[in-house]
Amino acid sequence: MSPGDIIMKKRLGQTLSREEIRAFVRGATDGSFADYQLSAMLMAICIQGMSPEETVELTMAMAESGERMDLSAIRGVKVDKHSTGGVGDTTTLILAPLIACCPGIKMAKMSGRGLGHTGGTLDKLEAIPGMNVGLSRQRFMEIADRIGVALTGQSAELAPADQKLYALRDVTATVDSLPLITSSILSKKIAAGCDVVVLDVKSGSGALMPTLEKSIELAQTMVQIGNRTGRRFSALVTDMDQPLGLYVGNALEVKEAILTLSGAVQGPLKQVSLMLGGQILQSAGLVQDAKQGADILESKIKSGEGLKKMAQWIQAQGGDERVVEEPDRLPKAGREIDLLSAQSGYVSALNTAMIGNAARVLGAGRLKKEDIIDPAVGLVMKKRIGDFVKAGECWCTLHVGAASDLNQARSLMDQALSLSPIRQPAPRLIHAVVDAQGTHYIEG
Amino acid sequence: MSPGDIIMKKRLGQTLSREEIRAFVRGATDGSFADYQLSAMLMAICIQGMSPEETVELTMAMAESGERMDLSAIRGVKVDKHSTGGVGDTTTLILAPLIACCPGIKMAKMSGRGLGHTGGTLDKLEAIPGMNVGLSRQRFMEIADRIGVALTGQSAELAPADQKLYALRDVTATVDSLPLITSSILSKKIAAGCDVVVLDVKSGSGALMPTLEKSIELAQTMVQIGNRTGRRFSALVTDMDQPLGLYVGNALEVKEAILTLSGAVQGPLKQVSLMLGGQILQSAGLVQDAKQGADILESKIKSGEGLKKMAQWIQAQGGDERVVEEPDRLPKAGREIDLLSAQSGYVSALNTAMIGNAARVLGAGRLKKEDIIDPAVGLVMKKRIGDFVKAGECWCTLHVGAASDLNQARSLMDQALSLSPIRQPAPRLIHAVVDAQGTHYIEG
Repeated sequence: MSPGDIIMKKRLGQTLSREEIRAFVRGATDGSFADYQLSAMLMAICIQGMSPEETVELTMAMAESGERMDLSAIRGVKVDKHSTGGVGDTTTLILAPLIACCPGIKMAKMSGRGLGHTGGTLDKLEAIPGMNVGLSRQRFMEIADRIGVALTGQSAELAPADQKLYALRDVTATVDSLPLITSSILSKKIAAGCDVVVLDVKSGSGALMPTLEKSIELAQTMVQIGNRTGRRFSALVTDMDQPLGLYVGNALEVKEAILTLSGAVQGPLKQVSLMLGGQILQSAGLVQDAKQGADILESKIKSGEGLKKMAQWIQAQGGDERVVEEPDRLPKAGREIDLLSAQSGYVSALNTAMIGNAARVLGAGRLKKEDIIDPAVGLVMKKRIGDFVKAGECWCTLHVGAASDLNQARSLMDQALSLSPIRQPAPRLIHAVVDAQGTHYIEG
Repeated sequence: MSPGDIIMKKRLGQTLSREEIRAFVRGATDGSFADYQLSAMLMAICIQGMSPEETVELTMAMAESGERMDLSAIRGVKVDKHSTGGVGDTTTLILAPLIACCPGIKMAKMSGRGLGHTGGTLDKLEAIPGMNVGLSRQRFMEIADRIGVALTGQSAELAPADQKLYALRDVTATVDSLPLITSSILSKKIAAGCDVVVLDVKSGSGALMPTLEKSIELAQTMVQIGNRTGRRFSALVTDMDQPLGLYVGNALEVKEAILTLSGAVQGPLKQVSLMLGGQILQSAGLVQDAKQGADILESKIKSGEGLKKMAQWIQAQGGDERVVEEPDRLPKAGREIDLLSAQSGYVSALNTAMIGNAARVLGAGRLKKEDIIDPAVGLVMKKRIGDFVKAGECWCTLHVGAASDLNQARSLMDQALSLSPIRQPAPRLIHAVVDAQGTHYIEG
């Protein structure tokens, strides 16, 4: 069948066969579909949708479009974690060392740099002096096996069809499609070779999907499709109506992860990290339920094992492990500027996307691949939804560098804050847990 | 608005504003929409459709994307004609000189070369020795004004947005969409500057649209949209369940046109040519109804004026006008091969697309722009639907040249012919007339 025949079939809303889907994905990889044919097909998929069977085929074809990691040299259950992206969302840096403290389970994670408000996990780790996130395959596997955790950059050889399609989706209004998002995320995870994957699907003003319903639908689709591919997938749908942690920026988020692992900081970031980690332990078959898993992981904080593991991990990847005891060794911004509230009131809303953009214009994130990140810059929130702020009180501190656009950051932050004379309840932190058994809604 | 925003709006099935449509068409012309963005938009239009208002805007934006012909130097009503394309469909060469015999009306037509079974009208005219179809603007206008008819190649400057979009549609399964077909055809006609346009929308086994209903819908859409742009558009929906004329090929069709104008040949080709011409006279306000117009044009055949006008026209464009008296001066193929029927029976169906393809593989048409046409080759049908053919009787003669693929042509022709013991009625020739007043269905 020619590209035109396959495109026409989806245009008419018909179901594509395995061979047709494979021809499309092969076309994205080897150029036998031109870019304009790929984008016509993407649009047809967006509007006409795909059946679960088609989405499984698309996912597997994309996963198999390039190299597939063989992690069998790492002993134990290999686990991975993916977030649809949020602000102040540094759960990986907290749960990874805690998981690594548990016997029989290893976190061997490949991560992308990504575009957005702040850098990806890779960029955060690179804020640690000396940290090497470009490990050879052999070194990556050796560290994961020995320490229980390793994290390295995602190879260009992993799911090249996804890289091609993702770049096109970004500029053709075809990003938000359940089968396309699902196949994009899952194909990379499957190619990266883990047995167990937990997904953190964000919902709220800083999230990929516009509504809670859509976020739950995405989580359900990804778990359903993921489990059909022979891996164990589960998902948490969590709040992104305000930054998860109080620290936004690369070195700042590393610092908050360290403070959390040391037991000095409590709050939503810790809670979500423990629940995601608990879900991983459950999926790996090590505990009966996620709550039990979260309790085990919390005990690793209390015992100091988590922080110790973090230091081992950093050292294994060539970083300066002293940062775990002395976080001030992390890069620091030249200036700190307190934002003072003009009025008094309860924080009723925080536009999370705007706060993320403020961090980006300070230099913490990228708009284009070529943009250079300043690891030191970002912001630290002092208030969360429901907190009272007095006129003249500092509600956020900007950490400013030489290349920061301070005016734009100020303007974005001004717009991001909403005050009200009436106290709003804090948003629910975890909305639902989705696994192979179904969707468990968490009551408020 | 960015390309992505405009594409997203159509993806969601919303109505695009005038400015958004103009940005899209400008994007096709100046490259501010990349090819992959144009094709995503084309697919969204195919699936979500366009309102009449949007289609008018798209048509006018495309018409205005390049040069617009100013025909005001030609006196009288300027008329044009367009066919959606068929086999043995050489009505233009018959009606153009007949129209030119009528006072107060001029046919000033720009024509494309087109891809397909046989060449476009340009290629047919070029089969006449010496005929120049690359006239300067000035010469084109002068001939149209003086002789009453001129036909020249379509400038690359005419509706460049259509040229860009058409090339993309061809390879992205986005050809058959009412708003896209309509805007493509009408924009070129409007840019070419005529006052009155008659459209010949084909229906049947060799037609653009798969069913009669779809052909009528296309005719209605084009007439409705066309009349909103301030020109007088009307359409005939005519049969293409068998070749219209008996001659298929470039010189062969010129010959059939000459034989028709001389009064030697009757039949469907003549009937449709007269009705299209009659419709033009009616739209131009010269007669009360199309039948009356057709009668006037037929009288121009009987009086010999039509054939004389053909000679004048050919001479004006540099061609050898002696071909009208001596058609054997046209290029002739090296070999003629009779196809003999293996069985006896009534012709029950002729697959017109296959017959067209047979002419093409003989060398009469192009698959790619670069393909070279042999003006002499083609085929002459001896039978039409409803005719009886005896076993061993010739039902078609192939006119074969040095580059003809004779085996493929034979195989296509074998498959194209269906015989039956029961006599089928000939297909109705004209299904409907569509004008500003509405649709008039022609009873069988």
